[in-house]
Amino acid sequence: MPLKPHMKLVSTDDHIIEPPDLWTSRLPARYVESGPRVVEASGVVTMDSGSTTEVDGTQMWTYEGRAYPNIALNAVAGKSPEEYGLEPVRFSDIRPGCYDPHERVKDMDLDGVHAQLGFPTFPGFAGRTFAQATDKELALLCVRSYNDFILQDWCGSHPDRFIPMVILPLWDVDLAVAELRRSAAAGAKAVAFPENPAGFGLPTFHSGAWDPVFAVAEEAGTPLCMHFGTSTQTPFVSPDAPYTVTITLMGTNSMNTLSELLFSPIFHKFPRLKVTLAEGGVGWLPWFLERADLTWERHRFYTNVNRDVRPSDLFRRNVWGCYIDDTPGLAMRHEIGIDRITWEGDYPHSDSAWPHARERAEKAFADIPDEDVHRIVELNARELFSFDG
Amino acid sequence: MPLKPHMKLVSTDDHIIEPPDLWTSRLPARYVESGPRVVEASGVVTMDSGSTTEVDGTQMWTYEGRAYPNIALNAVAGKSPEEYGLEPVRFSDIRPGCYDPHERVKDMDLDGVHAQLGFPTFPGFAGRTFAQATDKELALLCVRSYNDFILQDWCGSHPDRFIPMVILPLWDVDLAVAELRRSAAAGAKAVAFPENPAGFGLPTFHSGAWDPVFAVAEEAGTPLCMHFGTSTQTPFVSPDAPYTVTITLMGTNSMNTLSELLFSPIFHKFPRLKVTLAEGGVGWLPWFLERADLTWERHRFYTNVNRDVRPSDLFRRNVWGCYIDDTPGLAMRHEIGIDRITWEGDYPHSDSAWPHARERAEKAFADIPDEDVHRIVELNARELFSFDG
Repeated sequence: MPLKPHMKLVSTDDHIIEPPDLWTSRLPARYVESGPRVVEASGVVTMDSGSTTEVDGTQMWTYEGRAYPNIALNAVAGKSPEEYGLEPVRFSDIRPGCYDPHERVKDMDLDGVHAQLGFPTFPGFAGRTFAQATDKELALLCVRSYNDFILQDWCGSHPDRFIPMVILPLWDVDLAVAELRRSAAAGAKAVAFPENPAGFGLPTFHSGAWDPVFAVAEEAGTPLCMHFGTSTQTPFVSPDAPYTVTITLMGTNSMNTLSELLFSPIFHKFPRLKVTLAEGGVGWLPWFLERADLTWERHRFYTNVNRDVRPSDLFRRNVWGCYIDDTPGLAMRHEIGIDRITWEGDYPHSDSAWPHARERAEKAFADIPDEDVHRIVELNARELFSFDG
Repeated sequence: MPLKPHMKLVSTDDHIIEPPDLWTSRLPARYVESGPRVVEASGVVTMDSGSTTEVDGTQMWTYEGRAYPNIALNAVAGKSPEEYGLEPVRFSDIRPGCYDPHERVKDMDLDGVHAQLGFPTFPGFAGRTFAQATDKELALLCVRSYNDFILQDWCGSHPDRFIPMVILPLWDVDLAVAELRRSAAAGAKAVAFPENPAGFGLPTFHSGAWDPVFAVAEEAGTPLCMHFGTSTQTPFVSPDAPYTVTITLMGTNSMNTLSELLFSPIFHKFPRLKVTLAEGGVGWLPWFLERADLTWERHRFYTNVNRDVRPSDLFRRNVWGCYIDDTPGLAMRHEIGIDRITWEGDYPHSDSAWPHARERAEKAFADIPDEDVHRIVELNARELFSFDG
């Protein structure tokens, strides 16, 4: 009996599809037109990238006059792989559990999942959309509206089933500090943060510019949750490579993040800061940590890095990984650190096993002792996010 | 006794520093001035990148009027980590074993290494320098001169100690086919090839353009050896990241290569083609192969990839990895495939343990059965390269 009935699955990476009225119902009247809203689109539209494209009777987000594709980015829960390939473009194409918290809880019950940590979709997995917007007064209101929705509506409706994660106004450190304080006081337990802010022109991890944000996150005990892809960078592949090449490689983004963090001053300045790497898997960590330590041993004398603390020691104090399917990661769990690994469901994306998450976890844990299983599926996540729901 | 005395270390990744007269002694008189040669440089020089820089009494390669830095790219064998950081800039700064085959054999004896496969330095690890040159008649002569040096002088002087690896005129597939046939007939056992030719503007792995080259490599049984970094691409990191961030991440280039190859048509068209991933390590392979298979299972229906053969099955038939230090890779050797792993020394680069390679290997193999050790250090490499020296 590898996954005992009393052990609850607490997932550390899932996705919320924002309901169409999230912003229109919260923004002041003067901003309802230019703020994010869902429209029926036909004909030629200007996309957020600046290019124009022709669409034929679809639903799209519009924000500051630009259109955003992927109404539900990869929300394929309940479909078979033979049906993958086209992004759902209407709310009626996707399960209501994508955007309705009550329906989400029903889908979690079907899946055998007790609790979830949900990343945003329209704002980007870490709030990039608003950091790149033109009207920053509107953008700040959008960030606060999203966080209010998460704290009051999504998590507030089922506080025992959802871990509240907020986004920050990344374009202004003072505003970010204020919003983190405000939302932590209102119950936020986690912060979505870019895997590398330099990827879209914000200050780097090495710059010291984020120190006030990191100081508050450390003080509040709210982990910074870095989902792969949030740097906007993807691995270098040939222009004609099939998309499977990139999907396979996305976990290397988490390797980039971890290498940046472990050789930065961050964990030396903020020794209790907590960072999670979302969706990157964990099976590569033993190889990576050995490589980072050997690099540090050989090259620390002429590079601008801390010479006293090994990268792997920082990892085992400040960083957590998570996984969906990872046989090698489970086999190497003690080399990684049994307290470093959390489980994730990834609902409603294509890596999700919905509605078979618990069955699949049971199979994966067949040969693993109870206490290790309990750590990985539930206890690590509860301690990391101070979550007692 | 984990590494028995009769087991010989056959390294599948080391580096040759070309002697200063390699090309001047072989090119026709009309090309001696513009071909690669070593000069004493002072003052303002134009670099191969097109920029200008001021140097003060150093040795540099010059080729077609441009100067090339890094006379001995990272050739630090025999130095302590405290001395790293400055590239050696004079031949007198480096061990003669870097550029002289007789001295190399002496250094290999000190290191306990029986045989080596050496990648070029000035030409790039896969011949890129000549692919990017202006005068292609000269460039072809340079490629042939390098290969003649390797076949006749370097390996010819100690055929039992060196595995002959050649480079190709990558800018012209017909010329590449002809040079591969010529050098294979002259004893070449391996071909250095870019980890991703698209990285510097050559046709991609998916294009089919390389098929004539791959057909000859398959027929001749000469593995294509893809050293990390030969795409000229490096992982995305912050502009102010310490260099340790990139050094740690270089193995992810081999992941990019493997993902491209396994989702390309290459191994379906050329089922006996052999590819080696040089210096990328092997400890990440169990995680990577599971991820590639899951991606293939879910996304093969709408992407342009083979739907019948799993990526991990292609890996176990067509690809070999190698490692320098890799505790997790050795622990997971049967998940990777005991016949897929070779050992490398990386002389004279900073990852090398010279002159302690054999001691270090002995320690790493302490708990590993004899037959696995023998496969990894010697037998796999001998079979892969048809090497009986």
